[in-house]
Amino acid sequence: RPYYNSSAADKSNGLQRQSVLDPLDSFARRHIGPSSSDAQRMLETLDPPVQSLDAFVKEVLPAKILSTKDIDINGPDFDSRPEGFSETELIARLRKIAKENKVMRSYIGCGYAGTKVPEVIKRNVLEGPGWYTSYTPYQPEISQGRLESLLNFQTVVTDLTALSISNASVLDEPTAAAEAMTLSMNALPVSRQKRPNKTFLVSHLCHPQTIAVLESRADGFGIKIVVADILEDNCRNVKETGEDLIGVLVQYPDTEGGVETFQDLADVVHGQGSTLCVATDLLALTLLKPPGEFGADIAFGNAQRLGVPFGYGGPHAAFFACGDNYKRKIPGRLVGISKDRLGNKAMRLALQTREQHIRREKATSNICTAQALLANMSAFYAVYHGPKGLRAIAQKAVNGARVLEEGVRRLGFSTGTRGKGEDGRTLFETIAIEVGSGRASDIAANAAETSGINLRVLDLGRLGVTIDETVELQDLEDILAIFAKASSVSQPDIPSVNKIASDLSLSVNELAGVPSALKRTSTYLTHPVFNKHHSETELLRYIHHLQSKDLSLTHSMIPLGSCTMKLNATTEMIPVSWPEFSSIHPFVPLDQAKGYKTMIDELERDLAEVTGFDAVSLQPNSGAQGEFAGLRVIRKYQETQPGKKRDICLIPVSAHGTNPASAAMCGMRVVTLKCETGTGNLDMADLKAKCEKYSEELGAIMVTYPSTFGVFEPEVKQVCEIVHAHGGQVYMDGANMNAQIGLCSPGEIGADVCHLNLHKTFCIPHGGGGPGVGPIGVKSHLAPFLPGHPLIKTGGEKSTAPVSGAPWGSASILPISWAYIKMMGGRGLTHATKITLLSANYILSRLKPHYPILYTNAAGRCAHEFILDVRPFKESAGIEAIDVAKRLQDYGFHAPTMSWPVANTLMIEPTESENLAELDRFCDALIEIRQEIKAVERGEQPRQGNVLKMAPHSLGDLLVGEKWERSYGMEKAAYPLPWLKEKKFWPSVTRIDDGE
Amino acid sequence: RPYYNSSAADKSNGLQRQSVLDPLDSFARRHIGPSSSDAQRMLETLDPPVQSLDAFVKEVLPAKILSTKDIDINGPDFDSRPEGFSETELIARLRKIAKENKVMRSYIGCGYAGTKVPEVIKRNVLEGPGWYTSYTPYQPEISQGRLESLLNFQTVVTDLTALSISNASVLDEPTAAAEAMTLSMNALPVSRQKRPNKTFLVSHLCHPQTIAVLESRADGFGIKIVVADILEDNCRNVKETGEDLIGVLVQYPDTEGGVETFQDLADVVHGQGSTLCVATDLLALTLLKPPGEFGADIAFGNAQRLGVPFGYGGPHAAFFACGDNYKRKIPGRLVGISKDRLGNKAMRLALQTREQHIRREKATSNICTAQALLANMSAFYAVYHGPKGLRAIAQKAVNGARVLEEGVRRLGFSTGTRGKGEDGRTLFETIAIEVGSGRASDIAANAAETSGINLRVLDLGRLGVTIDETVELQDLEDILAIFAKASSVSQPDIPSVNKIASDLSLSVNELAGVPSALKRTSTYLTHPVFNKHHSETELLRYIHHLQSKDLSLTHSMIPLGSCTMKLNATTEMIPVSWPEFSSIHPFVPLDQAKGYKTMIDELERDLAEVTGFDAVSLQPNSGAQGEFAGLRVIRKYQETQPGKKRDICLIPVSAHGTNPASAAMCGMRVVTLKCETGTGNLDMADLKAKCEKYSEELGAIMVTYPSTFGVFEPEVKQVCEIVHAHGGQVYMDGANMNAQIGLCSPGEIGADVCHLNLHKTFCIPHGGGGPGVGPIGVKSHLAPFLPGHPLIKTGGEKSTAPVSGAPWGSASILPISWAYIKMMGGRGLTHATKITLLSANYILSRLKPHYPILYTNAAGRCAHEFILDVRPFKESAGIEAIDVAKRLQDYGFHAPTMSWPVANTLMIEPTESENLAELDRFCDALIEIRQEIKAVERGEQPRQGNVLKMAPHSLGDLLVGEKWERSYGMEKAAYPLPWLKEKKFWPSVTRIDDGE
Ligand SMILES: Cc1ncc(COP(=O)(O)O)c(C=O)c1O
Ligand SMILES: Cc1ncc(COP(=O)(O)O)c(C=O)c1O
Ligand SMILES: O=C([O-])O
Repeated sequence: RPYYNSSAADKSNGLQRQSVLDPLDSFARRHIGPSSSDAQRMLETLDPPVQSLDAFVKEVLPAKILSTKDIDINGPDFDSRPEGFSETELIARLRKIAKENKVMRSYIGCGYAGTKVPEVIKRNVLEGPGWYTSYTPYQPEISQGRLESLLNFQTVVTDLTALSISNASVLDEPTAAAEAMTLSMNALPVSRQKRPNKTFLVSHLCHPQTIAVLESRADGFGIKIVVADILEDNCRNVKETGEDLIGVLVQYPDTEGGVETFQDLADVVHGQGSTLCVATDLLALTLLKPPGEFGADIAFGNAQRLGVPFGYGGPHAAFFACGDNYKRKIPGRLVGISKDRLGNKAMRLALQTREQHIRREKATSNICTAQALLANMSAFYAVYHGPKGLRAIAQKAVNGARVLEEGVRRLGFSTGTRGKGEDGRTLFETIAIEVGSGRASDIAANAAETSGINLRVLDLGRLGVTIDETVELQDLEDILAIFAKASSVSQPDIPSVNKIASDLSLSVNELAGVPSALKRTSTYLTHPVFNKHHSETELLRYIHHLQSKDLSLTHSMIPLGSCTMKLNATTEMIPVSWPEFSSIHPFVPLDQAKGYKTMIDELERDLAEVTGFDAVSLQPNSGAQGEFAGLRVIRKYQETQPGKKRDICLIPVSAHGTNPASAAMCGMRVVTLKCETGTGNLDMADLKAKCEKYSEELGAIMVTYPSTFGVFEPEVKQVCEIVHAHGGQVYMDGANMNAQIGLCSPGEIGADVCHLNLHKTFCIPHGGGGPGVGPIGVKSHLAPFLPGHPLIKTGGEKSTAPVSGAPWGSASILPISWAYIKMMGGRGLTHATKITLLSANYILSRLKPHYPILYTNAAGRCAHEFILDVRPFKESAGIEAIDVAKRLQDYGFHAPTMSWPVANTLMIEPTESENLAELDRFCDALIEIRQEIKAVERGEQPRQGNVLKMAPHSLGDLLVGEKWERSYGMEKAAYPLPWLKEKKFWPSVTRIDDGE
Repeated sequence: RPYYNSSAADKSNGLQRQSVLDPLDSFARRHIGPSSSDAQRMLETLDPPVQSLDAFVKEVLPAKILSTKDIDINGPDFDSRPEGFSETELIARLRKIAKENKVMRSYIGCGYAGTKVPEVIKRNVLEGPGWYTSYTPYQPEISQGRLESLLNFQTVVTDLTALSISNASVLDEPTAAAEAMTLSMNALPVSRQKRPNKTFLVSHLCHPQTIAVLESRADGFGIKIVVADILEDNCRNVKETGEDLIGVLVQYPDTEGGVETFQDLADVVHGQGSTLCVATDLLALTLLKPPGEFGADIAFGNAQRLGVPFGYGGPHAAFFACGDNYKRKIPGRLVGISKDRLGNKAMRLALQTREQHIRREKATSNICTAQALLANMSAFYAVYHGPKGLRAIAQKAVNGARVLEEGVRRLGFSTGTRGKGEDGRTLFETIAIEVGSGRASDIAANAAETSGINLRVLDLGRLGVTIDETVELQDLEDILAIFAKASSVSQPDIPSVNKIASDLSLSVNELAGVPSALKRTSTYLTHPVFNKHHSETELLRYIHHLQSKDLSLTHSMIPLGSCTMKLNATTEMIPVSWPEFSSIHPFVPLDQAKGYKTMIDELERDLAEVTGFDAVSLQPNSGAQGEFAGLRVIRKYQETQPGKKRDICLIPVSAHGTNPASAAMCGMRVVTLKCETGTGNLDMADLKAKCEKYSEELGAIMVTYPSTFGVFEPEVKQVCEIVHAHGGQVYMDGANMNAQIGLCSPGEIGADVCHLNLHKTFCIPHGGGGPGVGPIGVKSHLAPFLPGHPLIKTGGEKSTAPVSGAPWGSASILPISWAYIKMMGGRGLTHATKITLLSANYILSRLKPHYPILYTNAAGRCAHEFILDVRPFKESAGIEAIDVAKRLQDYGFHAPTMSWPVANTLMIEPTESENLAELDRFCDALIEIRQEIKAVERGEQPRQGNVLKMAPHSLGDLLVGEKWERSYGMEKAAYPLPWLKEKKFWPSVTRIDDGE
């Protein structure tokens, strides 16, 4: 018995307990849709039918790769129970873990600032399944709500930066810096891009984690990162870099709180034909001259302080803006305004930067999953506060900082001097205080211990304090008291904050002493949306109104191949909003984050167990980042190996676009492998030939397993062996891990590295396009090279530069995956995999009489997903995949993955969470659509203007305007199957123009 | 300056702060819709216009009643700040308070049992504004979701009790017992109802709080409550009561856990022509023979353990079921199945038990607000678990109890012996353990202190333990350890729970030793709804699907006169789900509920301040219960006064139906007072005449202020003086308190008692028909008579019997009102009142050119609501109030209060939370409807089949079926105003047949 047997494991009716006193709130039966009797019916419906689930599994997976052992999840309080924690036990265990974290007041700054998350946004967006379970808005007709919200986010960014284009979020501020660097490079003439000493100049006053991430990203492109004082000597460093200059990055306000004029710098940089990039802070830009007005070409930063909690580092939305001339090259997704068939305004993703369009081996960015949910939170935060509210928050923070600065000066300290106001006072909310060499750490440690306040240790003799929205009068008093204690003034008179405030004659609305070159005079957020939702009632209605336009998992199955849209269970989501997880700054001393450490250690261990690896890094913020991190680990390892520079990366044609993109970003040369046309499997002869050919240079192969065609390739072990034999490492793309867990594992198959998408297989909700977590698992020989961090120790002994700004990436959503694993246990996880495979094969069997299916294994089975071939209908009826996709909306379903990995086909993945009734509704819909296509084929319906071509149908289409003179009735348009009369989801617009 | 001046108080743009360092997340500006500039525009639009808000107030309120002082809210950490806590401060203060409560394991039972609230239900129902902000489903076309859920609740009740009728919840188990008693009385021939010694026999094994509440309710009806051993001597007590017998109440399982056969009792009771009432437990009925199968006529109980937390006593849904012959008299609301205009199945409230239909002075029940939200939670709990799941939960509890019983027996204790199984073991989940006289309290105190476990002290020598869904193996071990410690067996061998379980050969599915007379054999919950939503995904979709059919405050204004549907802010709702508030059993020792005490004391103090009273009781669970409690206090007081039995209660004709109903229930004789036809004011001459006439017998007057016609009557102080002069007490119905706060107060006006509806004025959400809280405030002379409680000391020194089962009623929702008051502060509360008055007058001024308005004061102003007179259109166009109400649904609005207090009119109350844009949309809708009426008046549209008569229009109406051949277009039906194309709420059915 190679894996948990299912007759015993299936607890789906919840009553097959071991003991009469076992907990009843077991989770697997809630997570898995089909009950055991449903599963039996499904097995019988398969073509050909199968007797048992375990017999079925053997038809799907090649015998050679089946695991030789059960997966074993354990840990404290867990007692090595294969059936997993009950929901109640899970919450109890998590409360214990949470208590190990100490929630303190963190004024560390460094790219993260405290914020007050409006409760109405927290409850209705962050905790609203209508928001968190939706998919990236690639089907715009059923996504107008989040598209509008993301457009609001973009407007916040363009208005505040005064640049013309913004995308809909990137992963974090440091990776945004990396994107800025590569975009700067891309903007240069090709000759300059090829210069061997091409250099990106970075201000020494940028955040340290930004500089570190730039290092890791510069590597593969052969860019030199030079950290320097940029303004020194009239920008001497810039000028001296000459033609080698790719661009310059400065931080505004800088990491120590200074605010300087960069207009002259901009002129110098532009004079050299290069790009000026500015890392900035949206809140500061409500008061200070925006980058777009002093010559910046690119501005980016962390939008976290607009209503997203610390979360021990993430997830938050970073923003990225640029001038018009960078428009075609801006990375990530962009919401644009288009029109629907009726000419109504409608939003959609512009430039369709979907992963399959990533420019593969020519790519300079691989971003795919971003931070949509968090961008929406920040957008609603801005909508709720409006321009005046945001400005008031900024103004209060500066006022607080000025009071503090004056207070510590009176106590005899000097404060940092660069980039001050005309009156010598800070221009924003961070101050640097000189406490005497060697004293900084002690004072900080003392502040934490005795006052529960975290300060930033800038260096041996200086402390940084960042005042944020949460800082009230008492907090200022408490900070001042810390410095009074540290003061050398004997018996210092602790100044009262109120007294200082009145001495300084601070104003609520006007910041004194701002030089005109630094003062914001232009307006922002003048759009009505930011000026009419300032009462809670209005904001609540706006949130719900937008939500009502969007299809999410609260409505129906989202059968997106390669995306694994499964249940995001409430119990998994609960801890995300606990302050013990959400209110921890990423750079607090480790003894304040012991709960995080416990949870992270357990999760790493469990993921290693599940994947068959020896070590795991949770740092990457997305699958694509995981690929980048994993390939970097391989490269660092290969550097230690004998032989030539091993920079060849073999990638099958069928691979996801991020694969070649990531390889290219690591400086690898991509060599494409063929697939067999009949089976879709890797062409072994081609593999062997290329391994031979590049034997000396072979760095790695990237394979997806099961393949992106949805089949368990039988020869995968052999592939690994061949590559290993030629000195290559095997990188497995784990996007399809949901088909493997408990039945086989990358480690056992022979992979050296694999990334997982926790936002697919491990239940982190998709959030409408992020957040994600893309951890990598590695074999022991690679473990030393796992990514590290400049401020907090993590990663292996020979750790490589970080790929994300926070040591553990999007730490605050890790409890979701941790909880999923702990509640499912080894048994539940394995059973879920079997049901996932069964569900896909059930749909396949039901649809096979009606549609051609692309690629199955020798037994006629698919893995967890399969490709429906609609290409023949193009000729027979003029119908394409997009028409079927849009028509599915009329039936209440989100379309499957369209035109990937094969153009003009649909890839269907049901996951284990959908129950049989829903699977059947979905099959019925596709079968009915097949009838509609037949009607066109038979000439009963016209090739244009038929119900498929006109799909989707919005209410505006049916009820408003011209007389109904179509070849089909309204009822056919709206309610093609009877159950739609009870439950119907309406697209809010008609088909949206896909051109630009 | 009699009250907070508004120019300074209005912080609605949030930026007029006192100090630059004041918190920015002030709440009043979020709660109040119109900003200060909006308010200015509204003042200018009034007819005639007014200069300032304060000048406007003087036009609305009679000068004589204006308060002479500002209200002053304070308390710890509050610093007497008129501007109130910020949202962050509030949460911080509440966290402190919450920590004073100790969350222990409570196995006290006594009508409350621990339960696991499925997180998916908690997040999506209890914490879902779509559910908690909706109104009682009187407009069924936009309420099909919660009607279906309440029907599910009723099905759970009828299936499990095996009785044919259930209502949609009552307030709690003890008041349900009271309803059962009065229904039993009502079912008797009138002659027997009038017998002076009529007696209700109550088993001594009923819960003590039930018996206590029966006492208070029996009082006014002159019913004798006799507590006795009912089965003793072949029901001797029953037989001996003879013709005086109203009915018999037994508890099944009883309060000590016994389960006895009542079939013979039923025969005896029926033989005497009386009613058998059974207090019961729905969970037990999954295993035990249901009351309907052994002759019970009425069964009721607490549904709390079906997924609703303890909440320190409430709110929970109690259920109430009866046989068919009691159908016409069953109290409370009932969901029934009807048809819509198209003949589709549609649900609606049957018997229309709306408050105005309460049978006034003939009433035996005044129930109005019930427990809809909690009934929905319990219904979803049953849907999620299904029949097998519920049975498994019950079975596990009995198994646990049996293990425990065996364990303590092995330790040498005997356990209660009545009502056991054939094998001498408990038949359900409660056991009574004899610990030796005088030892019970000590052992219980020790268990709490050392093990954190609460047991029930049954008497000096006995402890009770109730095993519930939350009890797992370790808990059983811990309980056993307590008894091992208390055991006199020297060095007791603590038996292992697993060992005992296996010794007893317990089964997961079958309960051994159940006599056939007590065994459930019939099926239940066979309806598909209980058998297909057992995965979280399916339940989530079901919850959201139902929600999508219902209009709530997340969509638009609900302008219901007398109901005050204002913002239920998220921050107010947050603490309700904290375990420190939700997981406390109502009968824990007071030292475990210190946080509750702090919060309750502060709330009582603040409500006293706001109302001008000296003492407050928070016990009543609804406004109607408040009336009953308040009048009882008056009666108890009057008994101590010289003079005749003062049992006359004067009530104006315009009063809410609950007023006379409550008076009747207190045994008072209702004398109706006239109102002036022109102004609607109380007819002073009639008042004087009746006071004279009944001078010796005058007990009280009940007045609503402002009047139910929405006007501040100028003579209210004089009314109080006259009544006082004749020895009467003044009861004020505080339903309209939202118009008073900060400007005037019942206490200052001269009232002696007043109830408040915290679910109106103080932001507890309406929940689709409950929960509610109806505290009463009293002057000092009445304070000694405030209701007490048999188990937990509360109320005055001469406290009267309780009106609710829990000492502080629905304690867990009190933090909502506490939070509202603390965040608004005196200033914010007062400003809200002014804006409430302004908003009503703004709508009045905009509609006056289009519709006649009923009743305004001399200055032409209304209070916080007013009556729109649509009666003339009956003749001119055949249009009635109901047509306007239904047509408003097409415009996306809930109808105003219809036909109350004046038939065929609409009473509009906007509250302060609606912003100007929403007020305008509402006015525009009514003005457009007036045009539609004109079209009929002019003959351009037919009197039948026009857009009003056909309203509301569902999608089924427009898209399905016959050809469109109406006198108006589809677009007119669906989108009569342009903004509806962007935001439209669709009724899910067409107009529902209002007949029965
Ligand atoms: C096969 C495959 N690889 C990589 C990715 C990229 O993952 P992410 O979107 O998390 O960056 C995806 C995402 O859909 C994928 O399907
Ligand atoms: C004037 C008036 N009195 C009493 C009540 C009864 O209050 P409750 O529904 O809380 O029992 C109401 C309820 O609408 C009311 O409007
Ligand atoms: O019945 C009610 O209007 O609450």
